[in-house]
Parts: sequence; structure tokens; C-alpha cells
Amino acid sequence: MAISVEFFRRLAAAAAAETLPRFRRFGEVANKLEGGFDPVTEADRMAEQAIRALIRQEFPEHGILGEEFGSENVGSDHVWIIDPVDGTRSFISGVPLWGTLVGLTERGDAVAGMMAQPFIGELFYATAGEAWYEGPHAPERLKLSTRKTNSLADATMCTTTPALFQGDRRVAYERLEKGVRLSRYGTDCYAYAMLAAGNVDLVVEVGLQSYDVVALVPIVEAAGGVMTEWNGGPAEEGGGIVAAATPELHAAAMEVLHAGRSDPAG
Amino acid sequence: MAISVEFFRRLAAAAAAETLPRFRRFGEVANKLEGGFDPVTEADRMAEQAIRALIRQEFPEHGILGEEFGSENVGSDHVWIIDPVDGTRSFISGVPLWGTLVGLTERGDAVAGMMAQPFIGELFYATAGEAWYEGPHAPERLKLSTRKTNSLADATMCTTTPALFQGDRRVAYERLEKGVRLSRYGTDCYAYAMLAAGNVDLVVEVGLQSYDVVALVPIVEAAGGVMTEWNGGPAEEGGGIVAAATPELHAAAMEVLHAGRSDPAG
Repeated sequence: MAISVEFFRRLAAAAAAETLPRFRRFGEVANKLEGGFDPVTEADRMAEQAIRALIRQEFPEHGILGEEFGSENVGSDHVWIIDPVDGTRSFISGVPLWGTLVGLTERGDAVAGMMAQPFIGELFYATAGEAWYEGPHAPERLKLSTRKTNSLADATMCTTTPALFQGDRRVAYERLEKGVRLSRYGTDCYAYAMLAAGNVDLVVEVGLQSYDVVALVPIVEAAGGVMTEWNGGPAEEGGGIVAAATPELHAAAMEVLHAGRSDPAG
Repeated sequence: MAISVEFFRRLAAAAAAETLPRFRRFGEVANKLEGGFDPVTEADRMAEQAIRALIRQEFPEHGILGEEFGSENVGSDHVWIIDPVDGTRSFISGVPLWGTLVGLTERGDAVAGMMAQPFIGELFYATAGEAWYEGPHAPERLKLSTRKTNSLADATMCTTTPALFQGDRRVAYERLEKGVRLSRYGTDCYAYAMLAAGNVDLVVEVGLQSYDVVALVPIVEAAGGVMTEWNGGPAEEGGGIVAAATPELHAAAMEVLHAGRSDPAG
């Protein structure tokens, strides 16, 4: 089903009203380990409540699964998946690369989604097979399209931090990193937005949850990219993720990640 | 000497007019290795020319040292130091954490400086011993002040990427990273701005040039932080840099970085 941009804008605004006042508390002690003041958890919880309220009102028959408040009515054909603040480490460091993620699944497939960065004022969203951007310095909405990068030697790759990869996957990740032109760390959901916008070419991560990826899958795919689980399966369940600007680049990355294994899909 | 905020705003606006149109060329091939189209080098060169023109007009007797066009009249007591686009990797990846850096030295000491991030619309600057912030969601300018973090166990640390540290410094960096609460990569000049704003506590880097740091020293110091070269000397010359929210945290970081050496200042 198609979701209107107006509904995405309402979701983004409702979440921003809860996240922005808790971001960068200049002059205050924002130490979540001291005194019980934890702005990021507060932002997470309040924003998810606001998003849930709008979805229940607009689509009362749909299910909802969120990072903070669990699941409701998830037997429905349509389930909304929410991560109110993706990029907690960016949030607590004052770095505006965190995002509010809301995705819609139809019988398990991600069909629509948005990533909003309210401090900068950006909205990346996809519905009905098209992906769009609204933000500062853009007079109107821009259609998102990945860069047509087919080889690893030309690719810019993003990951949260190599430290998250363990064992064989660390070895595989480092092999891949050696083959790309440039690698960048610390971008969280923003990396997928930059992939869809044609600024980077590859995002490789591990340990993601469903709510970290469902909103991003339709944006990446509608922009022309390919986003799968580490072994090539659907990305919607989370886990390890390989997202690429083109099918050719995705295949090249998968080949390097799974080099030397007798069953590259296994 | 004191520099007016109006002059910093003019410098930031003149640079933004050259950098922003070259940032995120949606839908275009922005590959600096192909076809000679190199938006970041163009942005660098054009922005530096614009900044130099304003400085020559306003302070004709001052010297200027810039990343792209070298030095002029650097025997003057006052020399301006320019990095038109600090954070090239962010710039070419579409990530708005790069900045335009302009600093002023008085007989070698950094006495005023600015870091502007024009895509977000932020200006961090220091003059006459005070550091200030102007940006979106801030109704008026805010005084910058570091967070009063005294121990490594409470500290958030930033660096561009651990891969830049070599040999003994890599070992020292990793020892320090193990002792902090949280580490983040990929922030370039933005890390120092977040340090001055009280969002992160420690920035440790290597291989910096004078034009990477001079603009940031007055901002960090006026906000209450301490910023030195790796061995404790003045930061203005670049090289390895240790910047901390408090004198106590700076001392703690230096102790870990130089642990086991008979002459920690050597």
C-alpha cells in the first residue's frame, strides 16, 4: 500500500517534538550514568509513543513493533516497525547523524519507510517504489538515486565501527575494507540515506535488529540499490547487512565477504 | 586582538557560497578520479580565495596561510590560518560534519577562530577569550562550555579513525581507547566543536597540519578545555593532538598515552 508524504511528515514532526528538546543539552550534565537523567532514553520512549499514537489513529487495523514498547497486533498483514532514535552514540555525542526510523511491512516485506534527521531538517522516504528527499538547500523534493558504482575499487563504504565485527566476520570485513577506495565509520542509519542519495556506495554492518533496517530497505531499493542479509537473504529480519548502490557492487562485496567458503550462501 | 562576530559571519557566508553548491551533487557523478571533475578540490580552492579576499580587505597588514594557496606576509605579528574544507572524506560522502576553519594567530599563539558547518547552518567561534555557538534551533547565540568530566571512565572520545595511528602511537591510542566510556570515529573538526559544546570530552588525533588546528584552539580553550600537541607542547603547529574538556582529563589522557616512557614530555 502507498503511504502519503504528508503522513511521513506528520510522523517526523511528532517525533522531532520529543527528540530535539533532548538533543545537545548545552550547559547541562547529560550523563546517563549519573543522577538518572537519561535524555536519549527519554527521547526514544516519548518519540515512539508519539509515532504509535499517529499510526493507531490513521491505521487502526495495522500492527506495530517498536524498539521501546514491543509489539501489538503483529498478526496483521501490515506491521509498522519503529526505531525512534537510531544512532544512540551520535545522539549522546551531539552529532546530528542519528535518525528516526519508521517502516511498514506487508506480510513481512518492507514496502514503505522513512528516515528523518530533525536537527538538520531532513526527510528521506520511500513509498510505491519511489524514494525521495526533502531538506535544507533543496527547493523541492529530490528523487533519490544511487550512484552507478559497479566495482569495489571505486566504492566508498560505511560501517558503524569495525569493532562490532567478531571472529570470521571481522576477517571478512577487513578483507572487504582493503578492496574499497574509502571507508568511513560512525554513520548509523545516515549511511543508508547517503547510499540512497548517491553519495556513498556500500554499507556493511552486523548485529542489527529488525527495527534498525525495515524503514531503510524500501529507501535503498527504490533508489536502485540492493540490501540483503549477510548471506543474501531478505534484510527485513536484521542481523548482518550488506547494502550496495548496484546489483553488480552487491555481488562483488558478497564475493569478497564469503571468499574461501565452499557455500557462499550458507 | 578581538574579532567581531560579524566578520566571522561574513567569512562563513563567503565560504558557504562556494562549498554548498559543490556538496552532494545529487544525480551527478562526483568521482574525483574520473573525468577531472573534483567538487571537493574546487570547493576548497574557491572558498579559500573568497576568505583570503575578505581578510586582505579588512586586515591588509596581516599575513595569511591557507591549505590551498600557501603563505603571504607571514612575517606579520598577525597571521590568519585557513582550511576551507576540513573533513574531505565527510564532504565527498555527503556527510555534513566537514567545516570551514579560519583562525588568527598573534605572534604564533592562536587567539581567535571559527568553525562553520554551512549545510546545517552552524557557526562555532571564539574571540577575546569567549567561545560562542549560533545554529538552528538556538534562538540566540549560546556560550560554549566544556563538560566537567575529570575521569577517563566517564569520557566520550573522538578520533578520525584509529587507522591513522602508527606504531607506538597506535599502541598508546588503543590503551587510551580501552579506558574511556565511549569512542566515536569520523568526526574531523566537528569533534572539537562538540568538545567545546560539552557533548564529548576528549579528541585525540595524529598527523594534523597547522591549518587543521589553529582555528579550533581558541574555541576549545575559551570553552574551558585544554588542547596540546601529543607531548604537551602548544597545539598550533599541528602533529599529534590531545584536546580535553578539563585540565584533569587532559592530564589523565596524557598519562595513559605516555605510560611506560621514562620521559613523558620527550
